[in-house]
Amino acid sequence: MEKISQLHFECDYSRGAHPDVIRALVDSNMEVSPGYGLDPYCDEARRLILEECGLDCGLVAFMVGGTQTNATVIDALLRQWQGVVCAEEGHINVHEAGAIEASGHKVIALPAFDGKLTSEALRSYLESYYADETHEHIEEPGAVYISQPTELGTLYSLDELTRLSEVCREYSIPLFADGARLIYALAAPDSDVGLRDMARLCDVFYIGGTKAGLLFGEAVVCPSEELLPHFFSQMKRHGALLAKGRLLGVQFKALFESGLYREIGSNGISTASRLREGLLALGLEEAIASPTNQLFFHLPNELIDAISPSVGFSLWGPRGESSSTVRFVTDWSTTEADVDALISLIASKASAANPPT
Amino acid sequence: MEKISQLHFECDYSRGAHPDVIRALVDSNMEVSPGYGLDPYCDEARRLILEECGLDCGLVAFMVGGTQTNATVIDALLRQWQGVVCAEEGHINVHEAGAIEASGHKVIALPAFDGKLTSEALRSYLESYYADETHEHIEEPGAVYISQPTELGTLYSLDELTRLSEVCREYSIPLFADGARLIYALAAPDSDVGLRDMARLCDVFYIGGTKAGLLFGEAVVCPSEELLPHFFSQMKRHGALLAKGRLLGVQFKALFESGLYREIGSNGISTASRLREGLLALGLEEAIASPTNQLFFHLPNELIDAISPSVGFSLWGPRGESSSTVRFVTDWSTTEADVDALISLIASKASAANPPT
Amino acid sequence: MEKISQLHFECDYSRGAHPDVIRALVDSNMEVSPGYGLDPYCDEARRLILEECGLDCGLVAFMVGGTQTNATVIDALLRQWQGVVCAEEGHINVHEAGAIEASGHKVIALPAFDGKLTSEALRSYLESYYADETHEHIEEPGAVYISQPTELGTLYSLDELTRLSEVCREYSIPLFADGARLIYALAAPDSDVGLRDMARLCDVFYIGGTKAGLLFGEAVVCPSEELLPHFFSQMKRHGALLAKGRLLGVQFKALFESGLYREIGSNGISTASRLREGLLALGLEEAIASPTNQLFFHLPNELIDAISPSVGFSLWGPRGESSSTVRFVTDWSTTEADVDALISLIASKASAANPPT
Amino acid sequence: MEKISQLHFECDYSRGAHPDVIRALVDSNMEVSPGYGLDPYCDEARRLILEECGLDCGLVAFMVGGTQTNATVIDALLRQWQGVVCAEEGHINVHEAGAIEASGHKVIALPAFDGKLTSEALRSYLESYYADETHEHIEEPGAVYISQPTELGTLYSLDELTRLSEVCREYSIPLFADGARLIYALAAPDSDVGLRDMARLCDVFYIGGTKAGLLFGEAVVCPSEELLPHFFSQMKRHGALLAKGRLLGVQFKALFESGLYREIGSNGISTASRLREGLLALGLEEAIASPTNQLFFHLPNELIDAISPSVGFSLWGPRGESSSTVRFVTDWSTTEADVDALISLIASKASAANPPT
Repeated sequence: MEKISQLHFECDYSRGAHPDVIRALVDSNMEVSPGYGLDPYCDEARRLILEECGLDCGLVAFMVGGTQTNATVIDALLRQWQGVVCAEEGHINVHEAGAIEASGHKVIALPAFDGKLTSEALRSYLESYYADETHEHIEEPGAVYISQPTELGTLYSLDELTRLSEVCREYSIPLFADGARLIYALAAPDSDVGLRDMARLCDVFYIGGTKAGLLFGEAVVCPSEELLPHFFSQMKRHGALLAKGRLLGVQFKALFESGLYREIGSNGISTASRLREGLLALGLEEAIASPTNQLFFHLPNELIDAISPSVGFSLWGPRGESSSTVRFVTDWSTTEADVDALISLIASKASAANPPT
Repeated sequence: MEKISQLHFECDYSRGAHPDVIRALVDSNMEVSPGYGLDPYCDEARRLILEECGLDCGLVAFMVGGTQTNATVIDALLRQWQGVVCAEEGHINVHEAGAIEASGHKVIALPAFDGKLTSEALRSYLESYYADETHEHIEEPGAVYISQPTELGTLYSLDELTRLSEVCREYSIPLFADGARLIYALAAPDSDVGLRDMARLCDVFYIGGTKAGLLFGEAVVCPSEELLPHFFSQMKRHGALLAKGRLLGVQFKALFESGLYREIGSNGISTASRLREGLLALGLEEAIASPTNQLFFHLPNELIDAISPSVGFSLWGPRGESSSTVRFVTDWSTTEADVDALISLIASKASAANPPT
Repeated sequence: MEKISQLHFECDYSRGAHPDVIRALVDSNMEVSPGYGLDPYCDEARRLILEECGLDCGLVAFMVGGTQTNATVIDALLRQWQGVVCAEEGHINVHEAGAIEASGHKVIALPAFDGKLTSEALRSYLESYYADETHEHIEEPGAVYISQPTELGTLYSLDELTRLSEVCREYSIPLFADGARLIYALAAPDSDVGLRDMARLCDVFYIGGTKAGLLFGEAVVCPSEELLPHFFSQMKRHGALLAKGRLLGVQFKALFESGLYREIGSNGISTASRLREGLLALGLEEAIASPTNQLFFHLPNELIDAISPSVGFSLWGPRGESSSTVRFVTDWSTTEADVDALISLIASKASAANPPT
Repeated sequence: MEKISQLHFECDYSRGAHPDVIRALVDSNMEVSPGYGLDPYCDEARRLILEECGLDCGLVAFMVGGTQTNATVIDALLRQWQGVVCAEEGHINVHEAGAIEASGHKVIALPAFDGKLTSEALRSYLESYYADETHEHIEEPGAVYISQPTELGTLYSLDELTRLSEVCREYSIPLFADGARLIYALAAPDSDVGLRDMARLCDVFYIGGTKAGLLFGEAVVCPSEELLPHFFSQMKRHGALLAKGRLLGVQFKALFESGLYREIGSNGISTASRLREGLLALGLEEAIASPTNQLFFHLPNELIDAISPSVGFSLWGPRGESSSTVRFVTDWSTTEADVDALISLIASKASAANPPT
């Protein structure tokens, strides 16, 4: 199997696992343990995660992928007559093939700002809902879903998250945060939201492993576990219970035991920053001001075509008439050399397209 | 992490992966590939599997676990008003936390013989169903589910499978076989059903990887892929689409490219046979005549208690008054030495309990 | 439109409504009232029903039909990971086109005796369930469904119902009784179970109207309404909220305000008894000893064919080689003359078939 | 039971049935017929409806209510991985308690104009969907839902409906029209869409009875019945199969056999027009230009409070600071005298509030 292309900025899940993680899997490979997450590795990973979250107790459950985690958690949080509120751009609203509706729940999408649900929009929706005398004819809002960072790479500030959390608690609606890329949010220099804030302000959230250097895995954290009753059975019913569950424990233990998650987050952020600065210096325009590991830039179609053979990246939305939005993503495996090579490539192709006059 | 006990016969998924499989994951770890099963490893694994099945074409899809695979395939095979027929002991009827019903389908359980659905019972059910003038008030049988080997370790013979297949085809109902432990069925010396027979007589089946030396993974084979329309989307909707899908391709490629699946199956079968003979020689009674890698024996409770500290195994059903049924399982990692140690252990404890008079 | 045949014993819902009921609909027709069951007629019907049940308070909700009521109530009683236990012959298990599974719940069928779930079978199932160490992999029993009378016309005695109720309360599992034909159970002379017993021993039950002389309608009674949370919304979500909800209130008020339900029940029972005696006197054999308004008799096929042109009734199960089981049903509109005419008809055809020697 | 208030414009389902309809129910009450819609009345109603629609054949199915009909038809039109497209204001998106999602399907809401989905918006959505390379990760549009008239009382013109239909056929997506108030659309003088146009341009639609003078009932028309496979079973599974199905046949026969539906539609329209003109003449402002039987006007809160004790109507949306939008609805029972009384009432209260200076 040979390389598909030379430079890789297409996504943060195109390689296997961080070397420390794969090593942990190899080292524990011949051990015997009970299945379904009832093993010592999962226990240890739970302990490490609770500790980092500043929690004495709480449920930590491991699942394999993001859609599975979103569908299972949301179904567990809701009663039959309830739906889940989210930003219009929310992953569960736009890119999960109806996995939430598959368990019978409406996704109630509200207009958002930079991909973020505002506390004002949420409060206004909830006030209208309960003010409507016919609201019993309408699916009840039973949970609120956000993503940190959002699908557009943007971040909720501590103040924004606090206010969202306040509205949710005022209405007794659990706040659930999709943290598929949470480690990059935690590592962003301008972010003031830490893991302990997540654990304090959200009722459930998960720490993504798939996009954070694991082979796969998402760690759900729920400080008040009665919010997710019979969660083991609910996971099983969703096909989300891994037989060799310890694989998740081994990987999350590796991610958390020596600060590896911070290291990986930092690498994603620092290489993304370097790339952003390089692209801005070339006079390219950022489409969305993203402080995390996904960058969105407007590029002339000519330039896009010129660099495509040499670098992996993706169009974000449809191709425009003369220019389009593209996404570059960094991760644990991105090096400064990769970034510099990409900047050089773009610089050379851009100048070829627009020779100095 | 230390060993939980010294001998391990509790199940076939308590270790990691066969060394060849884990090596393949390590070797490919730093490569870049597209996600969701669209990578060259999955393509190659598909090619190898189709070849072994004697198929020119067909759908081969990889999922992570058995419940997930059963729920996704059955939901895809059925229309809304249909249910799935199976043996009373069928895994989907007794041990999947309602995962089939979760997508809105009834499991129609028929009485079975040694865990096997007979063609007579199936035909009789179908005849009664269509003879009933009110059958439009009753969930329509839309698929038939069997397991090879069954949940009791027994095997459909070629003749039995052929007759089941004939009834299904007569009624235009797809036959779906759960092959979570299929490699052990293929390796059983008395079995006359090969992979090509499975591909010829079943409409969909899967080759289990989780219990066959992979970290995880089940390979669904469907010779006529129109039976599973939009299967990619259906997998996504069930949370069954692995982001780093190539992990499944890499592992199944390793399992199939040098006959590893046959080697693993043979080891499971030969160690199980050795164990069966040893136990029978000790005068113990087999509860179910299983020719595969799960053995079921009646053991005096006294003996069970005596060996428990030194060997992992499981009770099968409730503990009886003076004796109980236990299950011993072998797999790729079971050695002849393990088997002999277990036989010795049992022999010593049995004779201690019943000293020669 | 002319009569389909001359005598009618095919079912208890082949005519419109009892004259008193249709008159109540006509009399209230031009009144204006709020929709969805929030009108004074529904309130009054609720009051009357609670009074007859000896209840000071509780939820009484009206729905249109039986399948709808079963599906809505069971879905409301259960959490996502739960199933409903019932007798093998339970209507929800055999004749509702998967309506229970459609909301994601397994129907857990237990072997029954004369169509009745025994407290012993229930207790044994529950004990096994909780004794099984892997029960979290199995759908949890979340409600128990029985029918009074059963689908075979038989009745739970007060003792049987009390013992079932005790097991349910011991395990904190609500007991739900389908009373589609409850008024006939209440009127059966040998029955010792009254409405107040139903209200005391069941957690939810309904009083059927469709088979009791209404155009349509089922009245759900739930003494502890927290068992059916947000039931208005749950009804709406199941498409079970009638816009002109007062039609249900008007009809149930008519059924309950002057003891009409007792009168209708008695007519069904007395005409059925008369018919049973007549048929037994003719030497015919009862297939099931049913004390309610459904009679099941073995009839020679020759006799079945001879009477078919003159009377409506139904085969119960498949046609046998020489004789088959048939069902005769009485209701509010059956007269003694109808019964005598049927007995004469059968007598004449039977003697023609078997002339005295 | 006394009148709730003197004038009634709150909705079109607050009385019982049109006198001709209730008479038909009374007249047929003692007849015997098969259940579940298999009776001669349903057959005759089907024949009359197909005739009015200019159809030689096709499925006509009767259900009890609108939410039930929408949920059952949409579930039947879609495959598991599909969703239904509608206008943001579509009833299924805003006022059905998640009944569509309850069967596992996403409601894909598009921005609309005057409550109407435009062919441009639909085409643009479909083009984007299929242009998106990741569309297999997104619920597939499997049906389009519109309402005629819309939830805002507005009407699709023949041209608009034709263009919508063209887009749907180009993409092979069935077009389904909710006709809960269709008879008022047919009677609107400016409307150029007749029943035959509906039957020609829609793939499925229904003719509402509940809001058209029946006690209840919706008649689904589907010219190509293979679009709704096993519809009888699907109705049963949704709890939507009425036992005494002939009640629906009797009523729809009455509605269609002597042009009663046109008479009722005309009465609703002419009284609404008279009211609109009266209110406009009083200088009141229409909120939405509705040509059907629902009128939406802005009224000063003072005036709303002044008339409320004497007339039933509803707020449309939240109460504003100084004025609010209200809805007045006419139906088969509204008289010119009712309208004139309402206009006088408003005139008197309005002048009292604003005495001539």
